[in-house]
Amino acid sequence: MPHDVFDEREYERRVDRTKERLHEENLDAIVVADPANMNYLTGYDGWSFYVHQAVVVTPDRDEPVWIGRGMDANGARATTHLAEESIRAYSDDHVHSPHDLHPMDYVAGVLEELAVADGRIGLEMDASYFTAKSYTRLQENLPEAEFADATLLVGWVRIKKSEQELEYMREAARISETAMQAGLDAIEAGVPEYEAAAAIYEALITGTEDYGGDYPSIVPLMPTGDHTGTPHLTWTDRPFEDGDPVIIELSGCRHRYHSPLARTTFVGDPPAELERTADIVVEGLEAALDAAEPGVTCEAVERAWRDTIAEYGLEKEDRIGYSMGLGYPPDWGEHTASLRPGDETVLEEDMTFHMIPGIWTDEIGMEISETFHVTGDGAETLANFPRRLFTA
Amino acid sequence: MPHDVFDEREYERRVDRTKERLHEENLDAIVVADPANMNYLTGYDGWSFYVHQAVVVTPDRDEPVWIGRGMDANGARATTHLAEESIRAYSDDHVHSPHDLHPMDYVAGVLEELAVADGRIGLEMDASYFTAKSYTRLQENLPEAEFADATLLVGWVRIKKSEQELEYMREAARISETAMQAGLDAIEAGVPEYEAAAAIYEALITGTEDYGGDYPSIVPLMPTGDHTGTPHLTWTDRPFEDGDPVIIELSGCRHRYHSPLARTTFVGDPPAELERTADIVVEGLEAALDAAEPGVTCEAVERAWRDTIAEYGLEKEDRIGYSMGLGYPPDWGEHTASLRPGDETVLEEDMTFHMIPGIWTDEIGMEISETFHVTGDGAETLANFPRRLFTA
Repeated sequence: MPHDVFDEREYERRVDRTKERLHEENLDAIVVADPANMNYLTGYDGWSFYVHQAVVVTPDRDEPVWIGRGMDANGARATTHLAEESIRAYSDDHVHSPHDLHPMDYVAGVLEELAVADGRIGLEMDASYFTAKSYTRLQENLPEAEFADATLLVGWVRIKKSEQELEYMREAARISETAMQAGLDAIEAGVPEYEAAAAIYEALITGTEDYGGDYPSIVPLMPTGDHTGTPHLTWTDRPFEDGDPVIIELSGCRHRYHSPLARTTFVGDPPAELERTADIVVEGLEAALDAAEPGVTCEAVERAWRDTIAEYGLEKEDRIGYSMGLGYPPDWGEHTASLRPGDETVLEEDMTFHMIPGIWTDEIGMEISETFHVTGDGAETLANFPRRLFTA
Repeated sequence: MPHDVFDEREYERRVDRTKERLHEENLDAIVVADPANMNYLTGYDGWSFYVHQAVVVTPDRDEPVWIGRGMDANGARATTHLAEESIRAYSDDHVHSPHDLHPMDYVAGVLEELAVADGRIGLEMDASYFTAKSYTRLQENLPEAEFADATLLVGWVRIKKSEQELEYMREAARISETAMQAGLDAIEAGVPEYEAAAAIYEALITGTEDYGGDYPSIVPLMPTGDHTGTPHLTWTDRPFEDGDPVIIELSGCRHRYHSPLARTTFVGDPPAELERTADIVVEGLEAALDAAEPGVTCEAVERAWRDTIAEYGLEKEDRIGYSMGLGYPPDWGEHTASLRPGDETVLEEDMTFHMIPGIWTDEIGMEISETFHVTGDGAETLANFPRRLFTA
């Protein structure tokens, strides 16, 4: 019973665009190992990416071939529209094998069958889960093949969203709003960090009255107190204390589509410097959102932020955003366009970005973010949540 | 302010054992990219594994070197005991770089500095986040180095747990019990799957009265109805229906240590066949637990299961368990020993396994699992939860 997450025609369009890119890159096949790309091309959705799996697209074959572990083949039957002959599974002795079998040995066999063993094959060389060993085993099994780095080939196909994809991102944004409110409500002096995390998680999965939420690709992050300068630490047993700044970064998720959102709160009376910093971050964020429209480059959007905060004598070195949407752990980013100096990607209608500028000093950290959709003549933010410093 | 998750001496012992293994394998260094192995050797704990990072151990240097993204260096300072000169960070233009910079270029520079650029260097070739590109960039940067596959080197060091590690796994087991009960309580006809998932998640993070829970490395899995034969699909908006079998697999997590647990429930009056299958699974599980003790091989433990269910005319092809403990997404398994035919690993005191036998027929799926600790003369299960078919 296939999911009805997307119409079968939408998958066909995605595969067709991927085939066009194969043609442009003179590739006879691509081995897609990124779970988000696998989902994008086939609909496959399972927590099975801890073993090797792949989707293979060739120019001549109508639909892709899904390749995974035997026990996951039923998952492919349940979540994709693929015909039975396009679902191929390796036996369980390939998994953490004591016999030196590797799933990519099986994938190589499928590539031989598809008559591309001596062809030019694109690989997602820098995708999480496409390991060094996956690569060397393909090399060993297919000595006549020529391999090319196609890490971002499907990512660039994904960058412009369809109406249905945008709809799922808007649904995710509704969940992000609810979960952010749950987090802000839970945080107060004396409450352990994990209780706020539990409240956020509960809201992320419960979703709205009309639909539930998927697991997000990144857990809710709540850098707190001295740790606002450590953006990727997760919650602990420590109680929030009067005087703590807390950054909440989270995302609702709907059919694997995200709409991330970050806000900052302060336990107790915030120092004037933090209030002032919040005002600057909001001003810079809004300047950058105003700059975003079709025809403008990613670096120009970042420049609007940087010029604004420079007026206050501030600077920030990291990128302030990235293209995103569909994702699996460990990331919801697409790894294509970034809002930063040097990125000359031109914004086009229906691209989507998470813009997450922040300012950290030795004393404080502050982040206020928005997910936005590039419209015909500007940028629409997906969530509707006040842009300011909160207090608890 | 370093965490006090483990005493500094425990990390020293872990690093010493790793150095012994380097010596035995004639390695001049190992580049550790698996986040669980990085944590094991240094204590580093952050959701930053979506960018490349590593811990390097060499025989001559007292402590390892942590290498990560600039914005995560403070996280390393906060969660490890490492000295400042052992924390090395690359600039943000290495992240999804438009300039063809790669974090492994920076890692190669550190390896040069450590005077092992012409040495024999162990790599975790098949670790989830050590990509094909990570490998080729190290090759390009270090043409004089000899690389060796050391995927499981640290994993085998991890297989026997310390008293403190066991303590965290027991704490995780308390959380698993609470979360399992929350899941069983939430499931009933008409309730959407996501509501049960939300209840489980809330319990997993809220933990117990004394401590909270970390995020587990794998989300709660609840294959349901027709989908009990698709073990890795995640929850949907579908309401549970009378007549649904539901398998719940979850794990509490404490300081990244897990204690997974699976049970099966049935919405409504279970068919006699399912009751009978549950009895067989419990009998087989208990036979295998009885067989587990120091000196016995992994395959002998599996055989006790297989012989038991064979008496009822049943067989199962997949492995029935694996060594585990510390973990990060996508997996809590250690990828070393498996309970399956052909695995001749001999059980030793203080190893820990998740034993998850199951039986699937065309009609039904049934899993009942236990996490166990090999004691001096047998096996102690960490959770205390009834072993039977539940009903909702």
